[in-house]
Amino acid sequence: MHGWVGTVLRVNLTTGKVSREPLNVALAKDYLGARGLGSKYLFDEIDPTIDPLSPENKLIFAPGPLTGSYAPSGGRYNVVTKGPLNGTIAASNSGGTWGPALKFAGYDLLIIEGKAPKPVYLWIKDDIVQIRDAAHLWGKLVPETTDALREETDDGAKIACIGPAGENQVLFAAIMNDMHRAAGRSGVGAVMGSKNLKAVAVVGSGSVSCADNAGFLSAVMDARHKIQAHPVGGTGFRLYGSEILMNIINQVGASPTRNWQDAFFPEADKVSGETLAANQLQRPKGCFSCIISCGRVTKITNPKYKGEGEGPEYETAWGFGGDCGVSNFDAGIKANYYCNEYGMDTISMAATVACAMELYEKGFITHEDTGGMALTFGDPDAMVEAVRLTGAGEGFGKRLGLGSYRLAESCGHPELSMSVKKQEMPAYDARGIQGVGLNYATSNRGGCHMRGYTIETEVLGNPVFGPKVDQHTIEGKPQICINWQNLTAALDATGSCQFTTFGIAAPELAAMVSALTGIDYSTDDFLKCGDRIWNLERLFNLKAGLSGKDDTLPPRLLHEPIKTGASKGMVNRLPEMLPEYYRLRGWDENGVPTPEKLQELGLTAQGFP
Amino acid sequence: MHGWVGTVLRVNLTTGKVSREPLNVALAKDYLGARGLGSKYLFDEIDPTIDPLSPENKLIFAPGPLTGSYAPSGGRYNVVTKGPLNGTIAASNSGGTWGPALKFAGYDLLIIEGKAPKPVYLWIKDDIVQIRDAAHLWGKLVPETTDALREETDDGAKIACIGPAGENQVLFAAIMNDMHRAAGRSGVGAVMGSKNLKAVAVVGSGSVSCADNAGFLSAVMDARHKIQAHPVGGTGFRLYGSEILMNIINQVGASPTRNWQDAFFPEADKVSGETLAANQLQRPKGCFSCIISCGRVTKITNPKYKGEGEGPEYETAWGFGGDCGVSNFDAGIKANYYCNEYGMDTISMAATVACAMELYEKGFITHEDTGGMALTFGDPDAMVEAVRLTGAGEGFGKRLGLGSYRLAESCGHPELSMSVKKQEMPAYDARGIQGVGLNYATSNRGGCHMRGYTIETEVLGNPVFGPKVDQHTIEGKPQICINWQNLTAALDATGSCQFTTFGIAAPELAAMVSALTGIDYSTDDFLKCGDRIWNLERLFNLKAGLSGKDDTLPPRLLHEPIKTGASKGMVNRLPEMLPEYYRLRGWDENGVPTPEKLQELGLTAQGFP
Repeated sequence: MHGWVGTVLRVNLTTGKVSREPLNVALAKDYLGARGLGSKYLFDEIDPTIDPLSPENKLIFAPGPLTGSYAPSGGRYNVVTKGPLNGTIAASNSGGTWGPALKFAGYDLLIIEGKAPKPVYLWIKDDIVQIRDAAHLWGKLVPETTDALREETDDGAKIACIGPAGENQVLFAAIMNDMHRAAGRSGVGAVMGSKNLKAVAVVGSGSVSCADNAGFLSAVMDARHKIQAHPVGGTGFRLYGSEILMNIINQVGASPTRNWQDAFFPEADKVSGETLAANQLQRPKGCFSCIISCGRVTKITNPKYKGEGEGPEYETAWGFGGDCGVSNFDAGIKANYYCNEYGMDTISMAATVACAMELYEKGFITHEDTGGMALTFGDPDAMVEAVRLTGAGEGFGKRLGLGSYRLAESCGHPELSMSVKKQEMPAYDARGIQGVGLNYATSNRGGCHMRGYTIETEVLGNPVFGPKVDQHTIEGKPQICINWQNLTAALDATGSCQFTTFGIAAPELAAMVSALTGIDYSTDDFLKCGDRIWNLERLFNLKAGLSGKDDTLPPRLLHEPIKTGASKGMVNRLPEMLPEYYRLRGWDENGVPTPEKLQELGLTAQGFP
Repeated sequence: MHGWVGTVLRVNLTTGKVSREPLNVALAKDYLGARGLGSKYLFDEIDPTIDPLSPENKLIFAPGPLTGSYAPSGGRYNVVTKGPLNGTIAASNSGGTWGPALKFAGYDLLIIEGKAPKPVYLWIKDDIVQIRDAAHLWGKLVPETTDALREETDDGAKIACIGPAGENQVLFAAIMNDMHRAAGRSGVGAVMGSKNLKAVAVVGSGSVSCADNAGFLSAVMDARHKIQAHPVGGTGFRLYGSEILMNIINQVGASPTRNWQDAFFPEADKVSGETLAANQLQRPKGCFSCIISCGRVTKITNPKYKGEGEGPEYETAWGFGGDCGVSNFDAGIKANYYCNEYGMDTISMAATVACAMELYEKGFITHEDTGGMALTFGDPDAMVEAVRLTGAGEGFGKRLGLGSYRLAESCGHPELSMSVKKQEMPAYDARGIQGVGLNYATSNRGGCHMRGYTIETEVLGNPVFGPKVDQHTIEGKPQICINWQNLTAALDATGSCQFTTFGIAAPELAAMVSALTGIDYSTDDFLKCGDRIWNLERLFNLKAGLSGKDDTLPPRLLHEPIKTGASKGMVNRLPEMLPEYYRLRGWDENGVPTPEKLQELGLTAQGFP
């Protein structure tokens, strides 16, 4: 078998049973791996209506076929589960070296079932798979946990773990690997915590077999050259990380500010990639097989916020920047470090703090609620402390740990949660960039930019995807949104990184996957995998109880025009786009895939609708 | 077998016999691969006194153990032979994808013997090895040859070939692969031409086996992180290529100008990496498994010099810049394109033109000699035309094609050749940087910066190699020079790239080679390989008739002080450094390795002295 290893590892934490089974090759062909194949296994194995934090939920760690190969950025894996933040199907994507290590150990999927009676961690060294006691690790931060596990397993072990946030079931807890990489969104860390699983430590001695080495060499070099040639993929990300976007997005009037009360942050440059490069940046860093090196190794010397770590990403810098109205970058970076150390998604954390700030300023949260903290926009200390409280599960942090939707709802004002399907939206204001709104509204995991990054077409004008399309129009946006969603689903399923789209797209990815696996994927075949994955995720959510009614945006985005900046006066015109989106998707007017569409994708044969 | 493939491919062009033999594993352990192992095989198989352009010479294409792996920049190979420019042992190093392809085809070494009765090329597809007629390719430029061979063999074939310069036995002809990558120095292309071998086209379907995948993963990530963290390896080269050095070296008063009549070029910025990035640069490009991407894809729109291609490197921009007194960068880049298309070493070509310019200005070459061309410093058109004439083997170009030493000698002024052991020195004035002079004088292939890049210690202050040492002093320089020479020899032998020293050194290389091959190399073991290779090369040269007397510099560097710039007034103090160098090397006062030294390196056991 080439590309895939051919083996699924299954660990039942309730019974302690460890078993291996052959990979379902037909499914692998149709769903590739990672987000795709993991989702298919999850779909087939759990009831979508279960409580995500119950032992009935499963937690699937899934590298893709390109993971561990020398394809550009071929080092990612996904964590697939039913997410506790909003009950949708979750697939959180992370880089570093952990994914390749799991594959080198000999596994395409690691499926965790049940719940351990007490805290444990999993130690995998090729065929050796042990469930070990983790009592001494429970309560530890991510860096301490990582160091301790390397100490007691193997110097070269790659560690994926949760911090206290995952243990405390913060609903947006992340799973962290390689210390600083995050399977960040949807609360996958809370699921891991609910299973009493602190960590998975891996050492693998295998490698990835390639069907056509000569063809793979050519395909990889072609892809690499194109990424290197791209102004962002080739140079921009290395210099400024994803933070290169801060000034760009602000200047086009799409940088949500003070919980989306506006979309222009006058002090954006103070929290930009350029400022980071001039101050806190120590060095760029890349994941396995990556030529982009967007990672930022950073350091804060300011005694008040002193610390060392990695990041922030653009979305994080935005969240702890303009969204909270804070221009003190050291504070924003410190908040990011806390998220990494406690193991939390930075987007949901920051957006929840921003939401709390608006609730506080409007009097819906009181001084007593916060434990005496004046949680006002622009206050760096309150922001940092709110994050720490959440990670540690202390005081008001317990309410913040439920996410902005539950917090705002508990105050009687759910409309102030800037979320879609209860998951917080990231750093692109959908009033200033129309297609982004449609993407948020239809994303299968709620508010998210990584399910279809139309920004490249609507703002950046990435030449890989043809001419730039005006960000403020809605014409053609449903098709652009679908194209991005399908491409992204397939890309995520390969095990490569979305940042490679700053240089390549479906043709190059299909060529690499074909040469590696020996299965001939045309560009259309490849994109059809993406379409199939998208529809499978949709079906999961429909079965879980969501419906087309959930494909919407917070009222603020539909009715409150942007006040300042380049997109002043605009709202998102979702209602005009959504019907066309459904139609182009082959869904009925309620957002349900038609039998014809399911048949086209080969989904009926597998037990649908 | 891990790291190495285990097979040597031998092709005798006289008889047409193709044979395979097992790799000598003991030698591979001691000499690693590429420059090291290729040199050992050459040493054992030819008489060093032979005419380099006779059928008795052999031409060895040699990847290293890291070649084709995902080690950073693990994509290089060396061409090892007796070089025709100066009769020393030649090992010319090139990147791209050709080296990995040869290894994927199943070969650690390709040894070419004899001489074909008529032009041929070699077609290698794994076990299929064919000597094919190349009559239709003879006379073609490198791009045409490459395209034609891909057409008639395989779309994905990797091509190494010579251009007309190699056919015409220009003594500094290069072997070009992947269109734009050059095994540049020493005239290895002339040897290929002397054998009537136009090209080697390769497709390989294998891969590189790894002894310890988990250990290799950790070692590679450590190396990658360190390179990414380095200001030059991580960012500088990607932004500006090796041309990042132009302004730096000029500012420290070490940029040889007008055939080394001075060491400061007031117009250096006009031919700098910054200027290239602002004008001709289309995109950066990297070789197989490279995270640095120093390659420059460039384009000249100026109608007079119109063209597209890759480069220039720093040394090329210097040669066709300050060394010829030319600040018209389009002209310099055009000259570079000609070198790539005709297949010539840019350093020797440019320095030979510069030498001819001085000879012309001083009246030692006449208007008649040049065919009516006024070959004066600063004339861009004369420079470009001189290069074209050389490549095409026309008129005065025939004399230029012999290199600066033979040209100057034929005019009665060999002292005006800025060469060491008849090979032209590159872009660092040894009067302004003392250790560089010692390195040039002792380099086993003559004037060369790639045999020990003390610049990193003397000018750049690369933190990887400890504190910066004053460029103008001689104290400690012999040891620094030896350290660099040994490190470089071992590094070249691995199949990685010297630019990785902008981030890593022996410990990281040893760790990667150990994990890949399963042979445990300590840092000292690794550096000892370098020392062994260095001494082997020295022994070859001594047997070939060279002696300690050849370890010198052009009189200009020893007696004519620099006139302007930061190193004004200085000469190189080689005579004060050389005896200490010999002593620290374990050589006698004539520069001959002592029996003790040879025994230490295990060289006596193999038939020395």
